[in-house]
Amino acid sequence: MTTLASGLKGIAVTTTRLSDVDGERGRLFIGGVPVEELAPRARFEDVLFLLWHDRFPTADESDAVRAALAAQRRIPAATVALLRSAARRRVSVMDALRMGVATLSAAAATPTGESTAASRLDDAIGLVARFPTLVATYWRLRRGEEPVAPDPHLGHAANYLAMLTGTPPHPEVARALETYFNTVVDHGMNASTFAARVIASTRSDMVSALVGAVGALKGPLHGGAPGPALDMVFEIRENAARSGRSIAAEADAWIRGTVARGGRIMGFGHRVYKVRDPRAEIFRAAAERLFARAGDLRLYDDVCTVEGVVLRVLDELKPGRRLQTNMEFYTALLLHGMNLDADLFTPTFAVARAGGWTAHVLEQAAEDCLIRPGAVYVGDAGRHCPSWMQPSPPSTPTVECESSVAPPAGA
Amino acid sequence: MTTLASGLKGIAVTTTRLSDVDGERGRLFIGGVPVEELAPRARFEDVLFLLWHDRFPTADESDAVRAALAAQRRIPAATVALLRSAARRRVSVMDALRMGVATLSAAAATPTGESTAASRLDDAIGLVARFPTLVATYWRLRRGEEPVAPDPHLGHAANYLAMLTGTPPHPEVARALETYFNTVVDHGMNASTFAARVIASTRSDMVSALVGAVGALKGPLHGGAPGPALDMVFEIRENAARSGRSIAAEADAWIRGTVARGGRIMGFGHRVYKVRDPRAEIFRAAAERLFARAGDLRLYDDVCTVEGVVLRVLDELKPGRRLQTNMEFYTALLLHGMNLDADLFTPTFAVARAGGWTAHVLEQAAEDCLIRPGAVYVGDAGRHCPSWMQPSPPSTPTVECESSVAPPAGA
Repeated sequence: MTTLASGLKGIAVTTTRLSDVDGERGRLFIGGVPVEELAPRARFEDVLFLLWHDRFPTADESDAVRAALAAQRRIPAATVALLRSAARRRVSVMDALRMGVATLSAAAATPTGESTAASRLDDAIGLVARFPTLVATYWRLRRGEEPVAPDPHLGHAANYLAMLTGTPPHPEVARALETYFNTVVDHGMNASTFAARVIASTRSDMVSALVGAVGALKGPLHGGAPGPALDMVFEIRENAARSGRSIAAEADAWIRGTVARGGRIMGFGHRVYKVRDPRAEIFRAAAERLFARAGDLRLYDDVCTVEGVVLRVLDELKPGRRLQTNMEFYTALLLHGMNLDADLFTPTFAVARAGGWTAHVLEQAAEDCLIRPGAVYVGDAGRHCPSWMQPSPPSTPTVECESSVAPPAGA
Repeated sequence: MTTLASGLKGIAVTTTRLSDVDGERGRLFIGGVPVEELAPRARFEDVLFLLWHDRFPTADESDAVRAALAAQRRIPAATVALLRSAARRRVSVMDALRMGVATLSAAAATPTGESTAASRLDDAIGLVARFPTLVATYWRLRRGEEPVAPDPHLGHAANYLAMLTGTPPHPEVARALETYFNTVVDHGMNASTFAARVIASTRSDMVSALVGAVGALKGPLHGGAPGPALDMVFEIRENAARSGRSIAAEADAWIRGTVARGGRIMGFGHRVYKVRDPRAEIFRAAAERLFARAGDLRLYDDVCTVEGVVLRVLDELKPGRRLQTNMEFYTALLLHGMNLDADLFTPTFAVARAGGWTAHVLEQAAEDCLIRPGAVYVGDAGRHCPSWMQPSPPSTPTVECESSVAPPAGA
């Protein structure tokens, strides 16, 4: 009767209308739209609307959802105080984000405190609006700087950068971040999204579901640790500067050396994608624009060179493994191009993915089906308490309860 | 290739050595021991050791685990400040517990910050030790009382009651709570335990996993809302006092009326148990001792009477449904007998279940297998951006990256 499916590989836990991942063909659709079409042109607020309502907003609705998000960015003073104390302890940004999200309360829009579709949408807006504030506030506090208040005139992405740096970003930089947000806002049933849905499936509140998702995203097996891919490129550049050889030659040597030592090349291979991750190309194009605008394409060119060498050498050393470029490889370049510190990469991913998490919670609430698998017991049977563990003496003689000796009832 | 299993019914997600639930025969084994043998005689600390180590402690180890837990009960000042602020907003106890747990940090016992079996066990002890302090501190703050410091000379259960009330409990009352804790410490793969394992499966930390579990337990579909079962008995008693008829007669009328109105009788029927929930009998016996000690068995007797009538009438009105007494029916009586407010029922359950959650996280970490199901996409295909969404003009002509036009590589 019970099927053991460790890790739930090959098991679909639900249906979804939010995103469609076609790993064999390397296609990703967000709300039905090819990600490469949606990501570089939509405002992030419009993508949120698309996920929350399963349709595009009108131009008026687009302005309304942008205003609703902008109006809810402030976080409670008690949350700031908690982040201040966490900063003194040098807590990691992801831990601080988990603490901060957990302090928020879901709206109780009905007199009974029960959620409705409308109150859940309010919760979604309130939560997505506050993720950037939590990250940016903590980031500045940990650096010994005072937080910057959110600017209601800026969009979601631009305001996040302004709160991090204290200065509104150039529109091209904000556009690059918006493209990043749109690209990673949702991606099927990954582990953090699944955690959010499991929690929501008990009819718990949206804050609880998102805190669980943040906790799952923290884990190294989740993916989303793009730092090492760029570190590899920096190391290859240093080797080239020392040796006077080309980036391509040093990359070739670096990769062969790493594979020979049994090391892993970060940024290549994916659990789902068997061809190039479509998000990698979006990030490559966005990074190219960003570095071209800054007038220095050298790092961008070196990253492209390294990618080509890695693909060629991996295909030679591990034929048939189909190890293709994944999203992480270009994520680090793109976020680095916005002057984001590597410690902000995963939190920034969370800021974007909060959109997908909230949409999945809304979808789960509409489905209203408890996610409750079983487990196969493989432990001892018939163990008994050790003799030194004495039962406590009864304080009164036990009298059998009426119900437990009741005769079989019924007409 | 992908099987759709909504809600994961009938799917076992993992193996476990922690508890074995036999719903058909109404048997529950905790760490291999029949729960009715273990619960009334073990110290809660010994049950924790059993779950964490898959064997009973020696008498020395028993004292050591008790001391280790007692030494780690204090919570950070920043956490108390956060709870104080939540109390002013009248946040629910479960929300406050989620906030409080989220502020804790997992130990980073290795220089790299990676967890080891030893550091995870430290985290388990630290977390289980602090759950009672979080609940009791918040409970007192919300009532306008100052928190009571933990007493390292008291066991886990007795200290919890002392922190709630300000007075060390009578040993029989502490024993009743310990029996309750032991009984509910673990119960297979319920939704909160599953949430904890999903989060832990990404190699995230134990704090993150337990915050997710607390969030899932909050949900009404999780079960664990025993208040209404006792409310029913109180209502029947009032009716009897007014009418002069017997409790049995009023119970009969109340149940028939509720069923006729389509209402649900709380405390009967269970997703897993098709016979009497074995935990119900443990709680009945513990409640009997508790009320006998207090010298007033009237409420206890009335609850037993109502149980018998409910079972008889349900069997008559819903033949074949096998609606048997579940744990909730006697939980409320037992916790009420300890003078615990109904608002503390679910948080007190969390205090106990934290033991099972931590044990499951340890088990999941040893297994080290990402829990990552799929989803079936049923949304629109081929949607496109509306015309008013213009692509932003490129700042430079796009040059194809070397790698994306690289010829198929290989020797």
